[in-house]
Amino acid sequence: MRFFSDNAAPVHPKVLQAIADANVVDTAYDGDQWSQKLDAAFSELFEREVAVLWVSTGTAANCLGLASMVQPHQGIVCHREAHIEVDECGAPGFYTGGAKLMHLEGEGAKITPEAVEELLGTIRPDVHQVQAAAVSITNATEYGLVYRPNEVAALGELCKSRKLGLHMDGARFANAMATLGCKPADVTWRAGVDVLSFGFAKNGGMNAEALVYFDPEMADAARYRRKRAGHLLSKGRFLAAQLLAFLEDELWLENGRAANAAASIIAGAAQGRLLHPVEANEIFIRLTAAEAAQLRAQGFDFYDWGEGAARLVTSWQHEDVHVRPLADAIAAL
Amino acid sequence: MRFFSDNAAPVHPKVLQAIADANVVDTAYDGDQWSQKLDAAFSELFEREVAVLWVSTGTAANCLGLASMVQPHQGIVCHREAHIEVDECGAPGFYTGGAKLMHLEGEGAKITPEAVEELLGTIRPDVHQVQAAAVSITNATEYGLVYRPNEVAALGELCKSRKLGLHMDGARFANAMATLGCKPADVTWRAGVDVLSFGFAKNGGMNAEALVYFDPEMADAARYRRKRAGHLLSKGRFLAAQLLAFLEDELWLENGRAANAAASIIAGAAQGRLLHPVEANEIFIRLTAAEAAQLRAQGFDFYDWGEGAARLVTSWQHEDVHVRPLADAIAAL
Amino acid sequence: MRFFSDNAAPVHPKVLQAIADANVVDTAYDGDQWSQKLDAAFSELFEREVAVLWVSTGTAANCLGLASMVQPHQGIVCHREAHIEVDECGAPGFYTGGAKLMHLEGEGAKITPEAVEELLGTIRPDVHQVQAAAVSITNATEYGLVYRPNEVAALGELCKSRKLGLHMDGARFANAMATLGCKPADVTWRAGVDVLSFGFAKNGGMNAEALVYFDPEMADAARYRRKRAGHLLSKGRFLAAQLLAFLEDELWLENGRAANAAASIIAGAAQGRLLHPVEANEIFIRLTAAEAAQLRAQGFDFYDWGEGAARLVTSWQHEDVHVRPLADAIAAL
Amino acid sequence: MRFFSDNAAPVHPKVLQAIADANVVDTAYDGDQWSQKLDAAFSELFEREVAVLWVSTGTAANCLGLASMVQPHQGIVCHREAHIEVDECGAPGFYTGGAKLMHLEGEGAKITPEAVEELLGTIRPDVHQVQAAAVSITNATEYGLVYRPNEVAALGELCKSRKLGLHMDGARFANAMATLGCKPADVTWRAGVDVLSFGFAKNGGMNAEALVYFDPEMADAARYRRKRAGHLLSKGRFLAAQLLAFLEDELWLENGRAANAAASIIAGAAQGRLLHPVEANEIFIRLTAAEAAQLRAQGFDFYDWGEGAARLVTSWQHEDVHVRPLADAIAAL
Repeated sequence: MRFFSDNAAPVHPKVLQAIADANVVDTAYDGDQWSQKLDAAFSELFEREVAVLWVSTGTAANCLGLASMVQPHQGIVCHREAHIEVDECGAPGFYTGGAKLMHLEGEGAKITPEAVEELLGTIRPDVHQVQAAAVSITNATEYGLVYRPNEVAALGELCKSRKLGLHMDGARFANAMATLGCKPADVTWRAGVDVLSFGFAKNGGMNAEALVYFDPEMADAARYRRKRAGHLLSKGRFLAAQLLAFLEDELWLENGRAANAAASIIAGAAQGRLLHPVEANEIFIRLTAAEAAQLRAQGFDFYDWGEGAARLVTSWQHEDVHVRPLADAIAAL
Repeated sequence: MRFFSDNAAPVHPKVLQAIADANVVDTAYDGDQWSQKLDAAFSELFEREVAVLWVSTGTAANCLGLASMVQPHQGIVCHREAHIEVDECGAPGFYTGGAKLMHLEGEGAKITPEAVEELLGTIRPDVHQVQAAAVSITNATEYGLVYRPNEVAALGELCKSRKLGLHMDGARFANAMATLGCKPADVTWRAGVDVLSFGFAKNGGMNAEALVYFDPEMADAARYRRKRAGHLLSKGRFLAAQLLAFLEDELWLENGRAANAAASIIAGAAQGRLLHPVEANEIFIRLTAAEAAQLRAQGFDFYDWGEGAARLVTSWQHEDVHVRPLADAIAAL
Repeated sequence: MRFFSDNAAPVHPKVLQAIADANVVDTAYDGDQWSQKLDAAFSELFEREVAVLWVSTGTAANCLGLASMVQPHQGIVCHREAHIEVDECGAPGFYTGGAKLMHLEGEGAKITPEAVEELLGTIRPDVHQVQAAAVSITNATEYGLVYRPNEVAALGELCKSRKLGLHMDGARFANAMATLGCKPADVTWRAGVDVLSFGFAKNGGMNAEALVYFDPEMADAARYRRKRAGHLLSKGRFLAAQLLAFLEDELWLENGRAANAAASIIAGAAQGRLLHPVEANEIFIRLTAAEAAQLRAQGFDFYDWGEGAARLVTSWQHEDVHVRPLADAIAAL
Repeated sequence: MRFFSDNAAPVHPKVLQAIADANVVDTAYDGDQWSQKLDAAFSELFEREVAVLWVSTGTAANCLGLASMVQPHQGIVCHREAHIEVDECGAPGFYTGGAKLMHLEGEGAKITPEAVEELLGTIRPDVHQVQAAAVSITNATEYGLVYRPNEVAALGELCKSRKLGLHMDGARFANAMATLGCKPADVTWRAGVDVLSFGFAKNGGMNAEALVYFDPEMADAARYRRKRAGHLLSKGRFLAAQLLAFLEDELWLENGRAANAAASIIAGAAQGRLLHPVEANEIFIRLTAAEAAQLRAQGFDFYDWGEGAARLVTSWQHEDVHVRPLADAIAAL
């Protein structure tokens, strides 16, 4: 059983069906009937007018979003282990024309207003130093922690007062929302988020992510940038159809809940080993090499996370019956 | 009936089936079983070792390929109406870090060695002027003409002698090959092409194009650039599966032939109106506004091409029965 | 006698003296007493509040200025023979992050509102094509013609109505002004120019150009971009001192007049040969290879300008006594 | 008396004289007689064939040099307080097209092979992470420490084995050399340095730095990049003349020695306060706010360096008589 990543999971049957259903002749790029419905569908979900661009990857979503907020000579504040910093091969630099990522420490890859303030305080306000223009947070974080609305709002207020944009990398936004139980608006625009990368690929999608602009005007230039980056697919209807399938009957949330529930079962069995609270669908545990070998011998696959630790990720398709054996195996170590 | 673009056509059933068949758990990015088979499959097709990267759009394929050949301070020679010049929103400039496109005229969007030589002759060999480092041609061209192997070879020789890379935008490579009847190798690497954007999206694919490097080492850096551009999809297996489905039993060529055959029927009926010879699946005809209106009233859709002209594009799904009515309608004008 | 370029001329003694006078200990970068006086001095000259940045080259001035007006996915309309297009090795692409130069024809390197309108009319207003965001003109032009205030104003109005920025490359602004006899304001901001590259290096300076922002707020980001481009010299006082020396007693204008007067003498002797009206300090003449050789044998140096033509450029240091022999030699051909 | 920075010092009289002497008509850009002598002059100094480009700032020299060694998707290892990281407003990102700076800690801004190895060990060798392609060190460092030939050679060997370029920021190379007493070759190319930014502006120059390529072929592309960055001054002779004046009778070394000697006097008086060994011309001392005020009241100017500390920098013009009062004042605190 594979617990490498939610990326490895298959596409949800309803999403695959939506793709098949979109296999008709229609206008190219984003002129088709599915793409044309996106703004309205997401506006309803977010309880305000938004503009939505589909793209094929979280990296593209994050970096197009960031490029909307910073000039090449400016900086983006993020956690030292943020995906944009460690897992996108410098994509933010490519998309922004060379903007600088400015790193913060923070438990579980979360950042606080205090830490941001402190970092800002180290920047001399002169032309010799790159000035920050945006903050990027990941919800749920790279370590599976979840920002609460009030935590985001505190960052949002700071950003507002400092004239910084606020971007949320929501590669696992569904998992965060499943935990929070609030409205999507509460933890995004109501809390000061300007742009959200709303991820679906890790949540049962095939290749569609939604880049959500809470200020629709900001999306105008992004449409050109998307084309220029080679991300305006000619048959965009297949991406739009996926997104709409996810919004139908809250499939996105249901999938997020399923993955979280699976993670929770494993976490329950690994209480003494947890390196981080398990608030979404990622479990980081202490695990010796011998223990890891033991689990693998029983058919469980996962990533080592440095020495003496491992990362386990659950996905929408993991049901009780799939994770229980792993939970038992961990408990039995 | 829509003759706007081959982009608008649906996905071929075999390709859709291949996508469905790939819906299993597998390694993320390009570590899956399908992606791992690509190099071998394309190497067989091209009768030499090649390295292949899947990407989601022709723009991404073209621009990653060009970025492998030119530095930011260099130039790319292409036709004034090349797709990279007029339809990619400056993507070559984005991917190369600002390289300059240098335009040539040429009948039907084809360029000749003589024209390239002439342009090169206008560039002062000093640091004040951008020096050309690559030539890009489109086969079939934006006007549906096809470069023969000897025509490409003449350009290839020039490029070799001038130390220029040679890129082929093969968004409609299948259509060109269907007309040429030669080996894919004959019109590509044997004729001096370094990098080929091998298109499938216009030929019955969903969102997969193959960027083919005839020198596999050139692909190493391109893999990083692909990631950096947000084009390394996490579920790349769905792209690789499409490409493999196309290579199976030469589906790609069969589709190209079907589209060309359909175009040929229309061309036959429009002999006196043709603006360019019809060598692939695009037909450019003289058509007054009144005539265009007449055709549209009968349910045929297509693009105007400036004043008094129109573009009609056929696709893999157009059979005799679909295009005959259009041919008759044109003949009856 | 050298008539290659006004670049080759020496530095005016008053400017050299100003450099020597600035050789004291003072604050680094642009914190020194000379740099701090620039805004006021140029504001007086231009009869409105302006912000001025010194830079070392016209290329840097042009490209920093353009980068203030266009995003990477946008375009800059200019003449096909504009310096930014043919003599800056792609610098505009570098500084703007890949913006596209869009070329126009026009007699003597001048462009007209009609030509700009026509070009704009060829751009489809969709994301597949680069949209223009600025127009750049050169005054005096690369062929020594001068835009009159009303000509600039016509372009300025067009730019305003189309929301395009208007940049003036004034590498030979002094020569243009010497001819025009109007106020600097009349042919710049009053006519709709947003940013002016005010050249001094060709006019007796050593290495100082003034980038003039008629909207001082636009200069804020440019200050960061200047640093980022390595153009914030640590001893900026030596650049500022040059600029101030030029403004003192209108030395800049006096030098421009001297160069123009010298050109005028040559032009008078070459009436039948002139390829362009001589309105500034450049003379383009028909000249056979034999005639060119004859002149060179008499000690006159200049550039060939393609076949059967030559370019002669005068500078601030050319007095009657220097150019008369050349004028006579041409008359005697 | 100002001890802010060596940037603030005046131009050495011999250099100013060389500038005045170059005020003749000559070929523009780098075609003049002075520029043409640079390669030979520096080749002699470095005991091997080198290619030298003049530029106006250390930032331009550093970043052109780095751009010769890294592609946009690669990284540059440097100290966290390296000038390229904290004082160039992101210029390396601009010049390289977005390459990433990778930071190391290290006493006095020096880095060790061990630290570089450790950092390299944290980079996963896959396309998701930026791979290092170069190391940049500063000699003398930003804290006035000097790398010995064997220290550089150890880094050079590591770079060679890891296929990394090695760049040396020699903004204060003269100060380092004055301390080392070895041959310039020993601490540069013989120790594995590929490119050196050889600084003169802080050492009595006006606006000239030498970018030295120990592999002359690497300079070819850099010449285009220099033009493209607006750093090819039209009257380059004034830069070349400065550099030649510095090489004449080892003026550069003499100036470095003078500044170091002055620093040494101050250091002697501040023994108990030194935060770093004083090996060049910078002195970092513990100093309370009250003590700082006391010194300033006596007419000594300098920068605070965080709380309770100060930075004092001497320059070529500081003689015993200039620094003795400061030394005495510090001793008397």
